[in-house]
Amino acid sequence: VTGVDIPPLDEAAMTAAYQRQLTLTKPAGALGKLEGLSVWLAGVQGACPPRPLTRRRLVLFAGDHGVARLGVSAYPAEVTAQMVANFRAGGAACTVLARNADVGVRVVDVSVGRPSGAISVEPAVTPDEARHWYDEGVRLADEEVDNGADVLIAGDMGIGNSTVAAALVCAVTGAEPHETVGRGTGIDDAGWARKVAVVRDALRRVRHASDLDGIELLSELGGADVAAMTGFLVGAATRRTPVVLDGVVSGAAALVASKIAPTAVPYFCAGHRSTEPAHRRALEALGLEPLLDLSLRLGEGTGALLALPLLDAAVAVIREMATFESAGVSDRPS
Amino acid sequence: VTGVDIPPLDEAAMTAAYQRQLTLTKPAGALGKLEGLSVWLAGVQGACPPRPLTRRRLVLFAGDHGVARLGVSAYPAEVTAQMVANFRAGGAACTVLARNADVGVRVVDVSVGRPSGAISVEPAVTPDEARHWYDEGVRLADEEVDNGADVLIAGDMGIGNSTVAAALVCAVTGAEPHETVGRGTGIDDAGWARKVAVVRDALRRVRHASDLDGIELLSELGGADVAAMTGFLVGAATRRTPVVLDGVVSGAAALVASKIAPTAVPYFCAGHRSTEPAHRRALEALGLEPLLDLSLRLGEGTGALLALPLLDAAVAVIREMATFESAGVSDRPS
Repeated sequence: VTGVDIPPLDEAAMTAAYQRQLTLTKPAGALGKLEGLSVWLAGVQGACPPRPLTRRRLVLFAGDHGVARLGVSAYPAEVTAQMVANFRAGGAACTVLARNADVGVRVVDVSVGRPSGAISVEPAVTPDEARHWYDEGVRLADEEVDNGADVLIAGDMGIGNSTVAAALVCAVTGAEPHETVGRGTGIDDAGWARKVAVVRDALRRVRHASDLDGIELLSELGGADVAAMTGFLVGAATRRTPVVLDGVVSGAAALVASKIAPTAVPYFCAGHRSTEPAHRRALEALGLEPLLDLSLRLGEGTGALLALPLLDAAVAVIREMATFESAGVSDRPS
Repeated sequence: VTGVDIPPLDEAAMTAAYQRQLTLTKPAGALGKLEGLSVWLAGVQGACPPRPLTRRRLVLFAGDHGVARLGVSAYPAEVTAQMVANFRAGGAACTVLARNADVGVRVVDVSVGRPSGAISVEPAVTPDEARHWYDEGVRLADEEVDNGADVLIAGDMGIGNSTVAAALVCAVTGAEPHETVGRGTGIDDAGWARKVAVVRDALRRVRHASDLDGIELLSELGGADVAAMTGFLVGAATRRTPVVLDGVVSGAAALVASKIAPTAVPYFCAGHRSTEPAHRRALEALGLEPLLDLSLRLGEGTGALLALPLLDAAVAVIREMATFESAGVSDRPS
C-alpha cells in the first residue's frame, strides 16, 4: 500500500479549542477527558468549536474464519451468518445500541460462509485477496463520508475473529500468545489452551511476522473481514473523519492500519477497553486511552456505540457553555 | 432520624433480569457492567424488563461554606451565587450536559450568600438546622417522584464544599485528612496544605466524629446544602427511585445517608470516580463501582449526567434485544 496521504490533526483548531476551554465557566481542566475529546474533535475536523456529530455510522464487517473449526470459540461457525440476519432484523446488541445512540447501521458480508484460511496451518487469504478487501474497506469509508458521515465505527462479526486478532497483536507488538489470548465468547480452560496453541502455531508458521508489512500481515494472520476493516479505518482517516474504535478486532485492525499508515492513528479514539488481553496490548501500542472500561467482550461495535454519547457531550460543552465573561462569573485570580 | 423504611431491591425482578440476559443473542455476560446495570434497575423498579427512564431530573443544591474564606478554593465565595445565575441561564456545564441527556434541571438555593459555619472553628449548622434541611431534601425527592421522576441526580454548587466533603468522608471512614483532601477547583500546594489543615482542625474540634449520628455529622462537619442533599438521597431511595451519584460532594452525602439509612445504598449507582481522593474513599466505603473514570472534578452533577446514557443503553438492551430462540441463533452447546 503506497500513497496513503493523511494530514496531521489541525494544530490551530486544537489550540483554539484548548484556549476556549479555559474561558468556559468551570475550573480549567475540570471536565478531564471530556475536554481532551473536544480538542481532539477540533483537530480532526479542523474547526473550533467542533461541529456536532449528526450523521453517525456503524459499518459491520462480517466474515468467517477457518480457526472456528479448531475449537477456539464457545459457538459454532454458523452463528456468524445467524447473527448477520439478526443485525438485519435489528435484534442484536449493536443494532439496539445503534438505535439508542442514533447511529445508522450497514452490514457488509465480507466472507460469511466462505471462511478465511485457518491461520495455524495456512495463510488466511492470498496477498491479492488481502489487498482487494483492504481496498474495498477504503472504498466503503469513502462512500460513507461522501454520504455525509461525520463519525465512523467499525464493528466486527465472525466466530473465531478474536483468535486472529490476538495473532495480529502478537505479530505487531511482539507479545506472546498466552499474554494476548482471552476468553472471547466465553471459552473454558481447555478452549483457551486450544486458542493459545492456534495463535502459537500461526506465529511459528509465519516466522518473521515482525518483518511483514500490513497487507502481508492481513494475508498471513488476518482474513478478508479484518483486511476490509483495516482499509476502512485508514480510509476514514484519509477523509479526516473521526473513528471510534471498539474492541479487540478493531484494535487489531487499527494496529495493522498503523503499520500501513502511521498518520492514521491520530484520527482514532478508543471507545473502551475490553476484557481481552490483546485489546489492552493493542491500545497500549497505539498510545490510546480508552473512554470506557465496562468489562465488555462482545464486539459488533458495541463498546464504541456506548462511548459515542461522550463525544456528543464533549461537543455540546465546548459549543454551548457560557464563558466567565459572558456569564459574569469571577475567574480565579491570576 | 427514625422511621426510615426502605425496602430491599426486588430480588425476583433481579433474578428475572439476570435470566433474561442469558437468553439474549450475545455470549453470557459479554456486555459486562451494562448487564449489571439492567439487573440493578430491574431490582430498583421491581420490574423486568425495567422501564425506560423517561423523566430524568437533576436537582442542584447550592450553598456557601464558611471555610471558603480560609483559602481552601481557587475561587472566591461569590462564585457560588454567580454560578447559580449561570445554571438558571443554562450556560453552565451541568445545564449543557442536562440538555444533551434530556434531563430537567431544578436549582435549589439552600444557603447561597448565607454560609454554613467554618467547620474548622465552629459547627456548620445547628442540629435543628441540619434536621430542617435534611427534611427539606426528603421533601424535594418526594416532590420530584410525585411529579413523575424515574431517575434522580443530586448536583452540588458551593465554593468550599469539597473541603466539607473531605471532612465528612474522614469522619465516616476514619481516613486521614491528607488521604482525602484533593485539589478541588485547582488549588496549588499552599492551598492544599490549608485545606488539609482546615479538615484536621475540624476533626480535632469535633473529636469523636465516628460516634456521631448522621444528623450530628451534617451539623458539625457538613452544612445546610449537604444536609439537604443527604435527605434527597434517602428520600429517593424511600420512593424506590434510582439515584446516579456524581462526585465527592454527593459521595459524602451518600456516606452520611448510609449512616442514617443503610438500606438506601442499594438504590445508588456511582456515575463516575472523580480525581478527588475523598471520592475514591467514599465509593469504596459504599461498595460502589463507578461507571466512568474520566478525571472529572467539577461537580454540579456532571459526572452523573455523563453516565446516564449508559443506563438508557442498559434498558434498551434488555428490552429490545432478540433472544437466541426468537432470532434463530444457535446458543452455545450446554
